[in-house]
Amino acid sequence: MIHKLALIGFGNVGQGFAEILRDKATHLQDNLGLEVQIVAVSDLLKGALYQPTGLDVATLLEVVKQTGKLTDYPNSVGLKRDWDSLKTIRESNADTIVEVSYTDINSGQPAIDHCRAAFEHGKNAVMSNKGPVALAYAELSALAKEKGVRFCFEGTVMSGTPAIRMPLMALVGNDIREVRGIFNGTTNYILTEMESGLDYATALQQAQSLGYAEADPTADVEGYDALGKVVILANVIMNVPLTKNEVTCLGISHLTLADIQQAKSEGKRWKLIGRVKKESGSVVATVAPEMLPLTDPLANVMGATNAITYDCDLSGPITLIGAGAGQTETGFAILIDLINIVRGNV
Amino acid sequence: MIHKLALIGFGNVGQGFAEILRDKATHLQDNLGLEVQIVAVSDLLKGALYQPTGLDVATLLEVVKQTGKLTDYPNSVGLKRDWDSLKTIRESNADTIVEVSYTDINSGQPAIDHCRAAFEHGKNAVMSNKGPVALAYAELSALAKEKGVRFCFEGTVMSGTPAIRMPLMALVGNDIREVRGIFNGTTNYILTEMESGLDYATALQQAQSLGYAEADPTADVEGYDALGKVVILANVIMNVPLTKNEVTCLGISHLTLADIQQAKSEGKRWKLIGRVKKESGSVVATVAPEMLPLTDPLANVMGATNAITYDCDLSGPITLIGAGAGQTETGFAILIDLINIVRGNV
Repeated sequence: MIHKLALIGFGNVGQGFAEILRDKATHLQDNLGLEVQIVAVSDLLKGALYQPTGLDVATLLEVVKQTGKLTDYPNSVGLKRDWDSLKTIRESNADTIVEVSYTDINSGQPAIDHCRAAFEHGKNAVMSNKGPVALAYAELSALAKEKGVRFCFEGTVMSGTPAIRMPLMALVGNDIREVRGIFNGTTNYILTEMESGLDYATALQQAQSLGYAEADPTADVEGYDALGKVVILANVIMNVPLTKNEVTCLGISHLTLADIQQAKSEGKRWKLIGRVKKESGSVVATVAPEMLPLTDPLANVMGATNAITYDCDLSGPITLIGAGAGQTETGFAILIDLINIVRGNV
Repeated sequence: MIHKLALIGFGNVGQGFAEILRDKATHLQDNLGLEVQIVAVSDLLKGALYQPTGLDVATLLEVVKQTGKLTDYPNSVGLKRDWDSLKTIRESNADTIVEVSYTDINSGQPAIDHCRAAFEHGKNAVMSNKGPVALAYAELSALAKEKGVRFCFEGTVMSGTPAIRMPLMALVGNDIREVRGIFNGTTNYILTEMESGLDYATALQQAQSLGYAEADPTADVEGYDALGKVVILANVIMNVPLTKNEVTCLGISHLTLADIQQAKSEGKRWKLIGRVKKESGSVVATVAPEMLPLTDPLANVMGATNAITYDCDLSGPITLIGAGAGQTETGFAILIDLINIVRGNV
């Protein structure tokens, strides 16, 4: 049976995901029996299309690459244009809403409303947008459960590196007493460059010129991006209804070359570590630079790479290392959520 | 519904798994809805018990710890004794056979026959025994599929570190072009100790005195243990019907302190690497020591720890690090297979 998708947002991640579908459709169908179809795209700036019998993905990508808009997508019988996101979610025949609109980590909107609308209308929601998970996990997961639909968000932590699905499917049964990790590639890149001698300002500039850091780097360097991921991991992996105000957060902007050198002379390395730790019935959650001994697997994760260690009572410590961002990587995160939904995996 | 188990073998792994059930039964039932019951144990040396309504796990463990046998387990109505492994598999009311008898990596027996009997009689088989998977994967997985039962073996590679389930559930959709890793803790421990100055013979002795290496260390130090895991990964993760004779295999017993020092002076480190790589439609599989640059995540895996890197076309390289052996860790590997069977996960 064809699984129908509506994409809310068609920026970097949405297009990355569409490219995977364009290039791998036959492979996915032959090897996994996965037949998916994009029936709708609704983007605040680029416009919207809805074709109940399926849009042509290659054309969609070509049109948006050439014009930046969806307007030039050719007409066909039954094609509707300009449906806004909520109308698309409510009234399209999609089985699953792919929420890849912009992330507002303060309000979580409009993505939270998109999820609510999807679940109320019996549709699954899949996303890489951290907002709904970091700010409304309890409410949204309860609503999805009540409506018998799925709420999936592998891409919200470490993009296509399965930091969420791996523990939920392959470590469950353990008591996970702590998770800690490097959840922000920009700051890890800056710290790596500082170790080779650049000062903070120069390393930041370099990260900006490479596109790792934004013009306003606050969310990365002050730890807020990592904080959102810590909240998600606390809620989803450790089952604790932690909110973002309960996380102590310190970034890396105060670290000097002297700090970096001092760590090096002690056989250690600074890393910006996000951590959730169970302590006597409660959890303590922090984001802060920590000086790790080089024997710690996290200490050897360099450049923009991310990593996470799960401290398990039965399996022992398990570490997962991989990309934490990227168009194709995040597109894959959407794909793996869909594969598991179609397979009916818990 | 209670899921009934028959344990074939009750050594280290079987008892480790039984201890987890004894200690975590309530937790597993409350949190995962997993209700399992051991109805039979059949061990070649310790004897056998079958109680269709369930054996008492705590008593089972206590009896075997105190006497080394199952004989003193108390009588009860309906209890049968001395059923051999095949009779237990065929005639007990178990839903799943837990194959934790001894591993014969040359013949795979009697474990292969145990799997055949289980599948023929509509029972799942779960194991940490490498034999059936390394030697008869194609036949056994086809038979299990035909009979509509499950063939699970997370514990055969890296024990409770989910080197098999993670890629199957969380990386599928990728083209995995290469897997490579440290699959033998004994040799990695020896190499780690050699780096701190011990010669090979002394490091081996130390590994033996700590219980990492056997009296006859051949299977570890010549790479045969890693080879079995390479064959499993080729078959299961990369879908290639590789047999063990097709793997080039070299161990670490020829490495000298001078080799170790030379690598160190080049900023590198020797690791015994198992590798399966796709090359123009076929695969090349090897076990051999390799000098890795310290920027490789595998280079920083020290002591008895194991690790694996999957090279994925969409997610990029993903590395998983964790224990590769241990009674509780391998017991967990059995548990996670059962959890996924009971959940009906693909």
